[in-house]
Amino acid sequence: MNAVVKRFPLRLDTRGARIDMTHGSGGRAMAQLIEELFLKHFDNELLRQGNDQAAFDVSAGSMVMSVDGHVISPLFFPGGDIGSLAVHGTLNDVAMSGARPLYLSAGFILEEGFPLADLDRIVASMGSAAGEAGVPVVTGDTKVVEKGKGDGVFITTTGIGVVPEGINISGDRAQPGDKIIVSGSIGDHGVAIMSSRENLEFETTIESDSAALHGLVQKMVETVPDIHCLRDPTRGGLATTLNELAMQSAVGMHLVEAEIPMKAAVTSACELLGLDPLYVANEGKLICICSAEDADRLLPVMREDPLGRDSRIIGEVVEDEHHFVQMETMFGGNRVVDWLSGEQLPRIC
Amino acid sequence: MNAVVKRFPLRLDTRGARIDMTHGSGGRAMAQLIEELFLKHFDNELLRQGNDQAAFDVSAGSMVMSVDGHVISPLFFPGGDIGSLAVHGTLNDVAMSGARPLYLSAGFILEEGFPLADLDRIVASMGSAAGEAGVPVVTGDTKVVEKGKGDGVFITTTGIGVVPEGINISGDRAQPGDKIIVSGSIGDHGVAIMSSRENLEFETTIESDSAALHGLVQKMVETVPDIHCLRDPTRGGLATTLNELAMQSAVGMHLVEAEIPMKAAVTSACELLGLDPLYVANEGKLICICSAEDADRLLPVMREDPLGRDSRIIGEVVEDEHHFVQMETMFGGNRVVDWLSGEQLPRIC
Repeated sequence: MNAVVKRFPLRLDTRGARIDMTHGSGGRAMAQLIEELFLKHFDNELLRQGNDQAAFDVSAGSMVMSVDGHVISPLFFPGGDIGSLAVHGTLNDVAMSGARPLYLSAGFILEEGFPLADLDRIVASMGSAAGEAGVPVVTGDTKVVEKGKGDGVFITTTGIGVVPEGINISGDRAQPGDKIIVSGSIGDHGVAIMSSRENLEFETTIESDSAALHGLVQKMVETVPDIHCLRDPTRGGLATTLNELAMQSAVGMHLVEAEIPMKAAVTSACELLGLDPLYVANEGKLICICSAEDADRLLPVMREDPLGRDSRIIGEVVEDEHHFVQMETMFGGNRVVDWLSGEQLPRIC
Repeated sequence: MNAVVKRFPLRLDTRGARIDMTHGSGGRAMAQLIEELFLKHFDNELLRQGNDQAAFDVSAGSMVMSVDGHVISPLFFPGGDIGSLAVHGTLNDVAMSGARPLYLSAGFILEEGFPLADLDRIVASMGSAAGEAGVPVVTGDTKVVEKGKGDGVFITTTGIGVVPEGINISGDRAQPGDKIIVSGSIGDHGVAIMSSRENLEFETTIESDSAALHGLVQKMVETVPDIHCLRDPTRGGLATTLNELAMQSAVGMHLVEAEIPMKAAVTSACELLGLDPLYVANEGKLICICSAEDADRLLPVMREDPLGRDSRIIGEVVEDEHHFVQMETMFGGNRVVDWLSGEQLPRIC
């Protein structure tokens, strides 16, 4: 026998093989899956330590932690896949505190029978997204459930980050008189998913806006440390996120429909699909609330960043004991933009 | 209309209602589920901030991060449930670096139709486990998948913790001559789950050993800062964990079967179920590897703790270029204890 023992006599077949229950058993098959698939794409020093936890040094200060589960269907869609989304979604939650994201953990729940080729593609995309963002996946876990007890793959990511000193961004800080900025056109992600699900073809393919916003946020907090609120309007869309902020801050909001950026293709698709774009999920947009003066300083900085090019002031914070979000419509009317009740788009992220 | 707007006109029905797709939509139903179920049981200041991320202060130093997905079936079992397990499992992964766990995140993937009463019970148990451990769940996420695309509830938890200065515990530090300690009887968790799944009745109910080990670990590192390796033998059991450590440290191991603590009921159940207890999962035990001298100092300290009462030295680290784990059997023979190949117990955690 050789001095070097071959742990895995055969290479993992990432072309034809499928996930089976042994990949979740903690034994040799799982070790091979981790080494030949996950480590290949997530390659970094901390993960290679091979311990059940990643260790790293931190400086004293304020830290944030955020978690997001991803159950999107379909797994692959125009503009991304569940892998890139699982990175962007959690990075953005971390970034919305003004923090610089540091590290990610990733928990995979795989369904028996899922093609390894698809898993390989997803993990590769996740690795690329993490690499581009400069935020490595440093610890992970894999579980396998029987066929019919899952749906391909679910990915839960947790991110941690550090908040620069002097930053205090929170959903309860919106004040009457503040301006409401959105960083670009709304509804792209949800409409891309729905079109893909319904096999709808439009003249131009609508792509998800899935993107990591922490670079944009960093420029924003450098320009205006006193940003009051930042939040990404994901599930429930712009309308739900603004209602959350209005409630947390005990204020009302007044929007101007004509100012809300929306792509023509998204508007048409929403009409066709019977969706209200205000409630459609975004994965690469943020809402920023700050003083009017700060908004004027922020806008040019945001517009210089590719992810903030179409930033607009879409309304302002007002006093309102009912915490209503209201909108002046295109036709000069006034509409209450309520919380999403019921379900508009299931499994959109 | 009242000045105080009632957000949820009807209280959440945690007795008769079931999860539906609206609970994952990001709208009003989800907000109510979070407020009236999750916040009730996870009550803490950080979670109540109501932001998409939790912010807290940390000191400079070494930090660890670890993630674990939980897909155990059945959800309720003797000695615990998926909620307490999701807390213990991740706390233990954090603690195995010698760290003091600080905070947990929790991502829930719920199946449409899952009874809210069961969810309430699970989240309550999770809240109690976190409370007892002194490690709060500070940020969470909920997703809902259609009936038949999940299995009741999956919970992915990530924990972070701080490593005391001077501690350097890692799977690659086992050295020839080191002693191998196990903190108590093996196989309890896996056998409890299998008995419960197969509806087996024994004279005494075998309970899972699911428990948070960070208190025990803290006493251990205070006594012996130079512990070389710590790991909890979960999926794949004692055998797989020792093989992992042997491979990481490039050493062999020599075990003495007669020294491995095992409850008589577990031994009998394993015979009946055709299981090898060495490969059966534990959720409240740890393996510690350290010098012979340190082992003598550690044992009395471990035995003082209720979770380490039955600690034993079960073998030692040896030189072996093949990195084999071998065991002197009860009958004086010698057996290679290989990696688990294939699947022994699916969905055991």
